[in-house]
Amino acid sequence: MSRLRVESFTISLDGFGAGPDQDLNHPLGVGGASLHAWALATRTFQKTLFGNDGGEDGIDEDHAARGFRNIGAWILGRNMFGPFRGPWPDESWRGWWGEHPVYHVPVFVLTNYSRPPLIMEGGTTFHFVTEGPVVALERARDAAIGKDVRLGGGVNVIQQYLRQRLIDEMHVAISPVLLGAGEKLFEGINLPALQYACTKHEATPSATHIVLSRQ
Amino acid sequence: MSRLRVESFTISLDGFGAGPDQDLNHPLGVGGASLHAWALATRTFQKTLFGNDGGEDGIDEDHAARGFRNIGAWILGRNMFGPFRGPWPDESWRGWWGEHPVYHVPVFVLTNYSRPPLIMEGGTTFHFVTEGPVVALERARDAAIGKDVRLGGGVNVIQQYLRQRLIDEMHVAISPVLLGAGEKLFEGINLPALQYACTKHEATPSATHIVLSRQ
Repeated sequence: MSRLRVESFTISLDGFGAGPDQDLNHPLGVGGASLHAWALATRTFQKTLFGNDGGEDGIDEDHAARGFRNIGAWILGRNMFGPFRGPWPDESWRGWWGEHPVYHVPVFVLTNYSRPPLIMEGGTTFHFVTEGPVVALERARDAAIGKDVRLGGGVNVIQQYLRQRLIDEMHVAISPVLLGAGEKLFEGINLPALQYACTKHEATPSATHIVLSRQ
Repeated sequence: MSRLRVESFTISLDGFGAGPDQDLNHPLGVGGASLHAWALATRTFQKTLFGNDGGEDGIDEDHAARGFRNIGAWILGRNMFGPFRGPWPDESWRGWWGEHPVYHVPVFVLTNYSRPPLIMEGGTTFHFVTEGPVVALERARDAAIGKDVRLGGGVNVIQQYLRQRLIDEMHVAISPVLLGAGEKLFEGINLPALQYACTKHEATPSATHIVLSRQ
């Protein structure tokens, strides 16, 4: 059964999943990059993002690595794909990741503004879905051919899927930083009422890792 | 210099400092007791709350024990003293802790309804302060005679002191439980804007401990 998984989604001690004022120079909002220090140090992220052979092993790495295993498609909110709001000004924006994105599988981008698919190098194709989260999930499941679908974020998109109980498993890392403003991952979300429980909890000097599972 | 410290204040993964629907049978709100599993297991809490000689040592214990060192007075919100709201029905309620409370120092209870001091066994006297948080802190500092003042909670009271930057140091434990509803400790609080930073972070299987310090 193809599951919908959130992996390595990181929040601050005060609960924010991204800093405020996202723009071209701050893809994760102001201060948002500090959230991801735990991940950037890992072998998986060093290899995936930078092509480096170094990086750390251990619990942080275990969580980072799991996030890329058995993934056949991704879903992203439009703000994770780019810094623009409203209609596409043109088709020149091709994502934050250059011509060879890190995904290597079909990626379904939720947006209100249609756009033709964007075929990138290395197996990534961005598909733009205007019919909402449920349709995006159906299309991603079809594309994943039996593998799981990874939901990248952002906060608002994760909340939409959580409220519909569509997420099977969700790994959240809590980083030892304070953001003070931005988007709170669990704002207005009653996880026990939605029948999610914390099924794994382990911590390192860099982050506390929790796994929330749908019961 | 006498500092104002929050110690061993515990929140859930989703940010709640107490469960909903506090009453006589649920002093910490429904589900709130599960928050404190990390603390209840420690040598300090076993001794302080139950008079037992057992309990666990280690990082959890270190944080629990620190919370009782060099404390000359406490401040509590009225809801931490009892389950009643509004005017005191009579003077029969003498706290959750029996005739021999765990404090052993003067305790200043913030309330809108005056009441004579309550002298308990073992050195605890409850003083009821109707003049607000700043006056309560002044009185507690006087009573502490050079030692620190510990702010027990609840969430609303901690927020009032945080907004005025009156808290010097704050130890928060994050327990691996979900509450889903209740009072969120950091709701509407921008810690970086108030110039608080995370100065310590360590975790155990039972909790993630952070210390926030005023800069």
